[in-house]
Amino acid sequence: MTQRAKPVLMPFHAMEVMREAHDLEAEGRTICHLEVGEPGAPPAPNVLEAVKQALPHPQRYTNAKGMPQLRGRLKQYYAEQHGVDIASEHIIATMGSSAGFILAFHTAFAPGARIAVTRPGYPAYVNTLVGLGFEVVEIPVSDADGWQLSGRAIAEAHRQEPFEGLLFASPANPTGAVAGRGALIEIVETCRELGVRLISDEIYHGLDYGGDSTSALELSRDAIVINSFSKYYCMTGWRIGWMVVPEALIRRAEILQQNFFISAPSLSQVAALAALGERDYAEAQKAGYAKNRLALSDGLRHLGFELGTVTTGAFYAYAGIGRFSDDSMSFCQRMLHEAGVAATPGVDFDRVNGHNYVRFSYAGTAETMNDALERLETMLS
Amino acid sequence: MTQRAKPVLMPFHAMEVMREAHDLEAEGRTICHLEVGEPGAPPAPNVLEAVKQALPHPQRYTNAKGMPQLRGRLKQYYAEQHGVDIASEHIIATMGSSAGFILAFHTAFAPGARIAVTRPGYPAYVNTLVGLGFEVVEIPVSDADGWQLSGRAIAEAHRQEPFEGLLFASPANPTGAVAGRGALIEIVETCRELGVRLISDEIYHGLDYGGDSTSALELSRDAIVINSFSKYYCMTGWRIGWMVVPEALIRRAEILQQNFFISAPSLSQVAALAALGERDYAEAQKAGYAKNRLALSDGLRHLGFELGTVTTGAFYAYAGIGRFSDDSMSFCQRMLHEAGVAATPGVDFDRVNGHNYVRFSYAGTAETMNDALERLETMLS
Repeated sequence: MTQRAKPVLMPFHAMEVMREAHDLEAEGRTICHLEVGEPGAPPAPNVLEAVKQALPHPQRYTNAKGMPQLRGRLKQYYAEQHGVDIASEHIIATMGSSAGFILAFHTAFAPGARIAVTRPGYPAYVNTLVGLGFEVVEIPVSDADGWQLSGRAIAEAHRQEPFEGLLFASPANPTGAVAGRGALIEIVETCRELGVRLISDEIYHGLDYGGDSTSALELSRDAIVINSFSKYYCMTGWRIGWMVVPEALIRRAEILQQNFFISAPSLSQVAALAALGERDYAEAQKAGYAKNRLALSDGLRHLGFELGTVTTGAFYAYAGIGRFSDDSMSFCQRMLHEAGVAATPGVDFDRVNGHNYVRFSYAGTAETMNDALERLETMLS
Repeated sequence: MTQRAKPVLMPFHAMEVMREAHDLEAEGRTICHLEVGEPGAPPAPNVLEAVKQALPHPQRYTNAKGMPQLRGRLKQYYAEQHGVDIASEHIIATMGSSAGFILAFHTAFAPGARIAVTRPGYPAYVNTLVGLGFEVVEIPVSDADGWQLSGRAIAEAHRQEPFEGLLFASPANPTGAVAGRGALIEIVETCRELGVRLISDEIYHGLDYGGDSTSALELSRDAIVINSFSKYYCMTGWRIGWMVVPEALIRRAEILQQNFFISAPSLSQVAALAALGERDYAEAQKAGYAKNRLALSDGLRHLGFELGTVTTGAFYAYAGIGRFSDDSMSFCQRMLHEAGVAATPGVDFDRVNGHNYVRFSYAGTAETMNDALERLETMLS
């Protein structure tokens, strides 16, 4: 067994950069925001109208698991998008995916259990697990393999350090990698063989430029699925998401939700219910990201950033910065202060190799992308 | 050292009763809601107007610690209400007090640490601590002592089972007991002597019928203070609260907030900022609770419920049911199904003696109180 350093609690650098960018804006600077995975557009007009209608009514606690109408509508979503029948009993409205993760970890595992994640991966996975007192195993994925997680890599990591859970995202943050149906089957099967509980983070579902993503629910009823209205439905600040839990975990999840959080924000549940009927609007936003995706990738390559095959999901470019720096933290500081371009250092996502990478979000407007590329060109020339 | 049974995770019965009440309403029954601590009124008109104005703008993630304007306004709140100077750096906007507790526990203590609470007390204290893997010590308080927590009781409990933290609320749930300034000084001093970190839950501040409550911040800069817009400002479903952390814990709290929750709901932060300027409206609501407080206490006593001296805070009557039942769970079921009166069994708050008590919330309208009392009279006669 190889000796590995245990990950410790670290700041969420994307949030640190955002706060610093806000401070600069308060001083009068204009900043191109490519640091946070945050759509530039508001939610669909009908979503805002639904909220406006609800506003005069007291927004009380809802049932802990959420408004019955919202949970019923999510059942319909799974039937329509994934062809699966998920009873609404399995569905819980959460305060964003963030609270969903906390709920999922404590629903499925005893405190201190060991959970595996990919490296690179969403920073809050490691930090939340560590902050809550869980142990973390990181399974490396690489640019050379298109940032894909294989069943073999899971099994090998489990052999070295057995873990009880695997937290996996497709489309992935920060790489945008999408596990195709075959790859997801391999992951689900490997987890089943190893007795590992899969938590499938599907918050970038819908933002897949190569065809619809497969949900773990199409392949397994043992997985916990986490999803959110933040990305596809442009509702980051509304802090509303949902999770789907297996039969055996429903009651424990409900009890923990009651006590940990009471219920998700009521107005946000109203908004979420409306948002599920506004996929045309969401698709129009996605068309914008699709354009940004190619423009930003091309632009970054032109400037000397290293990008492999452009990945097909989410709204991130995870770019090598070897030509400019071997310290992504200081390079991001330089981009922010010299060029007014906010981006997130790779060390947020990968503490081993992330000093060589920067993550750019292309969820903003085309103008922001162009402006950012021009500013970087000036800075780097 | 006496051997004590460790508390285990239990449902939050108030939420269970509410869900059952909602189910009955869906079947066409009318229910008097006295089960959840939830004001009957919406937030102040100016709060709704501020939200309406903000609605067309994208509601993005805010800084992890919250909007600078909100945190600045909370600094002003402490100056005005408590005469203390709290730099806004110490203040964090949270997703209700619920997320604030999770943040506080993991900011101040290592996983598995032992934390003391009063019994009876807010159910989510014990359940959240147990759910997160902390150990819980319960310090009994009694009707005979006006439900007051003394320094002596803290020291005695600590001698038997040393604990690192004390989570204490004044005004208290479910009893409405208020620790006067002298009593709070005793608690703060005892914690200091024992090296115990005090978490002061001040979410019922403002709802004090015997004069303004003292904040722990007037007495100590080592305490963590939790507060919320849910109760005094009528914003339960908005899931917005705040916490104040000591200097040494600011950075850890910020990092955990970034990773655990990203940021509190943005619209709710907008609403909260406006609410702080609407104390006249909040005081008008409070005047209603003050009337309910006396009417409900008198009515319950008249019906045969046992109530000591009426306590001076929050909006709860914690009533003995000895004349009717020794099983508060089944008595609450009977009230709900026979009379259509939803109230919370005392076992939610006290697993040892709570079978003899029921908690009624008087946060609703006067009509609800009268209706509930009439229904109970019919049921009990």
